[in-house]
Amino acid sequence: MKTIRSGAIALTGLLSIGYLSQRCTVDNERDQQQKPNFIIIFADDMGYGDIGVFGHPTISTPNLDRMAYEGQKWTQFYVAASVCTPSRAGLLTGRLPVRSGMASSRRRVLFPDSNGGLPPGEITIASLLRDNGYRTAMSGKWHLGHKSPFLPTDHGFESYFGIPYSNDMDRIAENPEGMNWITAQIAFAEEENYQAYNVPLLRNESVVERPADQRTITKRYTEEVVDRIREFKDEPFFIYLAHSMPHIPLFTSEEFRDASLAGIYGDVIEEIDWSVGQILETLKEEGIDENTLVIFTSDNGHWHIFETHGGFGGMLRGAKGGTFEGGMRVPAILRWPGKIEPGVIMDLGNTLDLLPTFCKLADIDLPDDRLYDGFDISPALFKTGLSSRDVVMFYRGTEVYAIRKGDYKAHFITQLEYGSKTAHFVTDPASDVEIGRAVHEPPLLFNLSVDPAERYNIAEAHPEIIDEMKKIMEDHLSTVVPVENQLEK
Amino acid sequence: MKTIRSGAIALTGLLSIGYLSQRCTVDNERDQQQKPNFIIIFADDMGYGDIGVFGHPTISTPNLDRMAYEGQKWTQFYVAASVCTPSRAGLLTGRLPVRSGMASSRRRVLFPDSNGGLPPGEITIASLLRDNGYRTAMSGKWHLGHKSPFLPTDHGFESYFGIPYSNDMDRIAENPEGMNWITAQIAFAEEENYQAYNVPLLRNESVVERPADQRTITKRYTEEVVDRIREFKDEPFFIYLAHSMPHIPLFTSEEFRDASLAGIYGDVIEEIDWSVGQILETLKEEGIDENTLVIFTSDNGHWHIFETHGGFGGMLRGAKGGTFEGGMRVPAILRWPGKIEPGVIMDLGNTLDLLPTFCKLADIDLPDDRLYDGFDISPALFKTGLSSRDVVMFYRGTEVYAIRKGDYKAHFITQLEYGSKTAHFVTDPASDVEIGRAVHEPPLLFNLSVDPAERYNIAEAHPEIIDEMKKIMEDHLSTVVPVENQLEK
Repeated sequence: MKTIRSGAIALTGLLSIGYLSQRCTVDNERDQQQKPNFIIIFADDMGYGDIGVFGHPTISTPNLDRMAYEGQKWTQFYVAASVCTPSRAGLLTGRLPVRSGMASSRRRVLFPDSNGGLPPGEITIASLLRDNGYRTAMSGKWHLGHKSPFLPTDHGFESYFGIPYSNDMDRIAENPEGMNWITAQIAFAEEENYQAYNVPLLRNESVVERPADQRTITKRYTEEVVDRIREFKDEPFFIYLAHSMPHIPLFTSEEFRDASLAGIYGDVIEEIDWSVGQILETLKEEGIDENTLVIFTSDNGHWHIFETHGGFGGMLRGAKGGTFEGGMRVPAILRWPGKIEPGVIMDLGNTLDLLPTFCKLADIDLPDDRLYDGFDISPALFKTGLSSRDVVMFYRGTEVYAIRKGDYKAHFITQLEYGSKTAHFVTDPASDVEIGRAVHEPPLLFNLSVDPAERYNIAEAHPEIIDEMKKIMEDHLSTVVPVENQLEK
Repeated sequence: MKTIRSGAIALTGLLSIGYLSQRCTVDNERDQQQKPNFIIIFADDMGYGDIGVFGHPTISTPNLDRMAYEGQKWTQFYVAASVCTPSRAGLLTGRLPVRSGMASSRRRVLFPDSNGGLPPGEITIASLLRDNGYRTAMSGKWHLGHKSPFLPTDHGFESYFGIPYSNDMDRIAENPEGMNWITAQIAFAEEENYQAYNVPLLRNESVVERPADQRTITKRYTEEVVDRIREFKDEPFFIYLAHSMPHIPLFTSEEFRDASLAGIYGDVIEEIDWSVGQILETLKEEGIDENTLVIFTSDNGHWHIFETHGGFGGMLRGAKGGTFEGGMRVPAILRWPGKIEPGVIMDLGNTLDLLPTFCKLADIDLPDDRLYDGFDISPALFKTGLSSRDVVMFYRGTEVYAIRKGDYKAHFITQLEYGSKTAHFVTDPASDVEIGRAVHEPPLLFNLSVDPAERYNIAEAHPEIIDEMKKIMEDHLSTVVPVENQLEK
């Protein structure tokens, strides 16, 4: 068997330093005058198996399927954390959320009563690009602090239109009689009762609608992005579209209600697919298709406790809130016609890598006063080499639960996903260990290339890999220094 | 939610009679003089999740992926049985194997000591097409009787090159010390010890090599097909390529050994993918690409008891030998450039449907003296309508265990897959019922469109659907008449 990567171990933190010490240069064929545009489309709680080309049998996603065929489908692409806030902090800063205080083992995300947020000292993709001549805009769910100085416009976005935290927060309706927290929210969605949630919709720093009408929110986010593309088309730009959906409660516009074979969850995904089509079409219409890298991915795995309202992890084990693959491996599709080589990419990638990769593509120096956890994956985009990533850290809160290095993943700790009461998504005879928390010595070890569903523990046969993993853990932890926790404020 | 089909219940047996009473006609644009060619490529034990475009993250299948993008990817396509012999009988006759005596609840397939086979009175796709002016050839695994008068050349194929039963039969090597039936065969594959199996390779009715060198068998089957295409190119033809792989023991040619990230199983699939590429390329070279319908599918789900040598059912529950989806839903890709409308098809399809659909496409009358269980799915090919199939029967041996009608599937009986000792592939808290056999009253009921992994039993909420399913069962059973059992001879 081939290994994904040969050679020495790349330590996430340490190699980042090495990476930063090198000046980013552009290829000759990419003109300094014509910096590429970047669009990130970030779904919320979309599972690995929720797209046709990632295996879903009954959700129709022709735009994403075509995007994958014309571009690159990344099959081993990860996020920085298995829940919203820390995952988004990682995406925008290129740093593990533990470094910015955006991870907590006590309060896993920000809530409406939170006082913290992404610290002003953090540098985001938006602030970095804006400082280098880019136009910037964001549409959608922020969830990195809803008070000043933590808002999108405090973090490099010229404009913002969206909801500041999750669409199930600020709930004002009680559970109907006989229902629990889960069944109530399923019922609100089925009844299109968006008023059960007093979620604000912001334009820049001001509330423009409350409660946000979530039925049309996917459509309105999309219109906002289309408008910004048309406004920015003659300058380099970065647009971040962070859909509120398919996070529960599920709502769609009328045109998509009952449109899917796969029920309301399918309807929601099909509207997101439509949205992708609108954006790609606008780029073509404006003639900037070939100068725009579009990335579609998700913030974490599917929220399985909501059953048929909670999406689908496909063949992966686990779900949102956990450190099995289903929690942190996400569908990822990259498109940049005429620039990146189409195909299926099996290299390791991570949302943490987008910041350093954009730097490379736009010929921008990274500030060198901090540790980054992202790597330049552009060699895999152009198929001039492999992505520079070889290690993935699986954090739960502020603790490393698992580490992937090349083909192998070691679980030092496993724990049932947040909110799980049953283990129905666990596909292993060892499932009992997931009820509660288990520390494994030796760690569970899986070869993810031959066993993507994490079924066959091979720790006994590979003590040398276990040793290697422990060394990676030790070296990584030595780079993590305590910072003020933002989620517990 | 849309249902897959509205309207009256279509009873498999009865509607077939209705179908047969109508004369098959061709569309005007398909010339009587230019009957289409048909190629069926049938993998052995390939799981639903073993192809890139069906969701596998580390097996590289660029030819199948492209075939799916240029043609149709069918996501809800079934086989007639969850093991080799009955599945193949269903494919070639368009009739449930219970009607031809090719299903048994005691001996699930034919073995080297079997004396039975597909009865001479059965009409196969090959005999039907040959009688109507087609050239015919088969390459690969037969498994419908290895003695006269049951061989391929007795059943309509002008020529045959392949092995008469499974590649793990005629084993002459004992289990090495400390190994069991499963680990021994994994070891033989890893050591490339094809001589452990005294499987004959036939040319027409004669043994030309014994033991068959399984390392090159995929390549040689492919060369045979390429030769027949070139020979037949000026006449209408039907070619049936039934790969021996990825049935254990796994072997590949040298070029594919260690080629895949996904281990030896991935190597085998990648060679099959190469084979598909060779065949499509030959059709283009000969200029008959647009007059040839190529169908790629598998005989049943993956053989999970062989773990990483046994393939991958993706997100489906269950595996080969069982009546959950993973046993009987298979990947299916159809390609006919310029004729069928490309896209993802979520209609129901079945290998049983190929015979009546070929009849329709080639303007051939079906013999009307027997019951067929196949439907004309050509409306879905041309997107002029839906496939005519609305019901799927899930047989285990000679018993109906489950029925699908539209979105819904009712399990009357569930049972652990043949050979299973653990339930690791079962993703449900109800997994205990799979240890051994369980009769369900009411049946388990799943909505497969919203719950493709068969996780959420909704029987209690839908007594009316249960009643409908029981009626379908009753009507179906009334069409099944006792015949001589061929597998127990």
